Amino acid sequence: MEPGYSVSEDIYVRYAETDQMGVVYYGNYFTWFEVGRNAFFRSLGQSYGLLEENGLLLPVVEANCRYLAPAKYEDQVTITTQLTNFTCSRICFSYMIQRGETLIATGSTVQGFVSKSKGRPINIKKHHPELWERLQKLLPGKHNGVVANAGKDLGSR
Amino acid sequence: MEPGYSVSEDIYVRYAETDQMGVVYYGNYFTWFEVGRNAFFRSLGQSYGLLEENGLLLPVVEANCRYLAPAKYEDQVTITTQLTNFTCSRICFSYMIQRGETLIATGSTVQGFVSKSKGRPINIKKHHPELWERLQKLLPGKHNGVVANAGKDLGSR
Amino acid sequence: MEPGYSVSEDIYVRYAETDQMGVVYYGNYFTWFEVGRNAFFRSLGQSYGLLEENGLLLPVVEANCRYLAPAKYEDQVTITTQLTNFTCSRICFSYMIQRGETLIATGSTVQGFVSKSKGRPINIKKHHPELWERLQKLLPGKHNGVVANAGKDLGSR
Amino acid sequence: MEPGYSVSEDIYVRYAETDQMGVVYYGNYFTWFEVGRNAFFRSLGQSYGLLEENGLLLPVVEANCRYLAPAKYEDQVTITTQLTNFTCSRICFSYMIQRGETLIATGSTVQGFVSKSKGRPINIKKHHPELWERLQKLLPGKHNGVVANAGKDLGSR
Repeated sequence: MEPGYSVSEDIYVRYAETDQMGVVYYGNYFTWFEVGRNAFFRSLGQSYGLLEENGLLLPVVEANCRYLAPAKYEDQVTITTQLTNFTCSRICFSYMIQRGETLIATGSTVQGFVSKSKGRPINIKKHHPELWERLQKLLPGKHNGVVANAGKDLGSR
Repeated sequence: MEPGYSVSEDIYVRYAETDQMGVVYYGNYFTWFEVGRNAFFRSLGQSYGLLEENGLLLPVVEANCRYLAPAKYEDQVTITTQLTNFTCSRICFSYMIQRGETLIATGSTVQGFVSKSKGRPINIKKHHPELWERLQKLLPGKHNGVVANAGKDLGSR
Repeated sequence: MEPGYSVSEDIYVRYAETDQMGVVYYGNYFTWFEVGRNAFFRSLGQSYGLLEENGLLLPVVEANCRYLAPAKYEDQVTITTQLTNFTCSRICFSYMIQRGETLIATGSTVQGFVSKSKGRPINIKKHHPELWERLQKLLPGKHNGVVANAGKDLGSR
Repeated sequence: MEPGYSVSEDIYVRYAETDQMGVVYYGNYFTWFEVGRNAFFRSLGQSYGLLEENGLLLPVVEANCRYLAPAKYEDQVTITTQLTNFTCSRICFSYMIQRGETLIATGSTVQGFVSKSKGRPINIKKHHPELWERLQKLLPGKHNGVVANAGKDLGSR
């Protein structure tokens, strides 16, 4: 994860999240990523739920996870979330899952900006300029340069 | 389960449904009950999704399960669903989960009839008379007598 | 819930826990009950995970929930767990789910005591007397009298 | 997906799998991938559960999904699974999720071969040669050339 703004949230592993291998089921890490995104937005004083109420949905269009060590029942794990990139139409997050000092998983998601009423992609620079401004300040490293690259990175996926 | 109309659906136990005890997590049986209800409505040519599209929600107001034997990964289990009771405002189902001849769980749910647009209870005898008629014919045993008792049974819960 | 020892734990509702009705899926309350049980055991300095490591499993044999009001995404809900009863072979908990002052659900579970190595019921008064002693002190109201009734209550289910 | 051996399995979307956006929660696609892998192994007359009983675990070390169109409650979706690659220590699958002719998601997973008793990576060419032989015949296109590349592909991840 690059130096810069990130948000961490601690959770305890639930029994429901384990599987018969005795560790957390791989699909449940994506729920943790969502818990991390939620904490990220909450840290902005702009909860994700509020975005939805204001007509903006962020459906996931891509998700990835690499599993480095198992997480077990009752482990306290820390989810760290960072905004890595965004364009008018998409936003990218990266995640680290740690148990104490041990890195147990890393991941990323890409979300689209979608109008709730129209069910179609929406240009947030145009329709949510205040969100656009706020996100700019949260990118790791610096600002305009990174954003300028964002479109290319996303385009090449 | 009483003699009468019931609907059975087979599923395979998923790895995601197990927990570290090596058996299906107890909360997941309620998802199976929902799969059973879905099959029940589908058997009427009246899917539950269609009910929702027609403005009728059936939120669960009570749910119970008794666990008699564990279900394991890759088990093929049969979910049998029966309508046990209904009134103008509520509907009750019972469920059996079997693996072959072995009964592994029984359960029940009570659902309310709620108007999607108003978010409030709705009288289905009045507003969905065709559904009311159809449900009458599906009660185990027979008809008016059981329905007459339904209100009392529900009231005493 | 009766006056007496109980343990409360706060959680935020996750997006993954909602369903298309816009509220928490009914089966997920049972995961919350498990989170409550976990907090209950943790408060004793005797985590549930540790019980399992010591060879004692507590599979759920019965679970019930009544839903009074919906829980929504990002709600902060409080899970309160109380030991209501136990015998040599079983243990009963009750649960309250609240959002602030609003009671949104109540529930109960019954768990059996099972030997991990033998996969069979185990008499905890005999094999885990220290646990037996500790649980006695946690019953609401009082002690021996309630325990004496426990067997009958359970037997009549 | 390349021409070659693949296995398809149909499922109905469950209510529990939806979220408040009215579509299937993104994390649940990974459960579907697991259902696909299960069907894949079952088609070989060698269920995944049996592999575990024989001491071989396949924990996921990497998982990816791209979401192209939403899946909705009661949709019948087809999960198609293909073996794309394997080495002595790892195995890769790709997945397609379709609703009728519509491709709604694609994904991939990488799994390690782990000894259940030792909890450590295991060389399947050496310790499970019959599995190694069988997997060779299932690769899309053809055989040794692809397998020879597998190590490099995996190594470069």
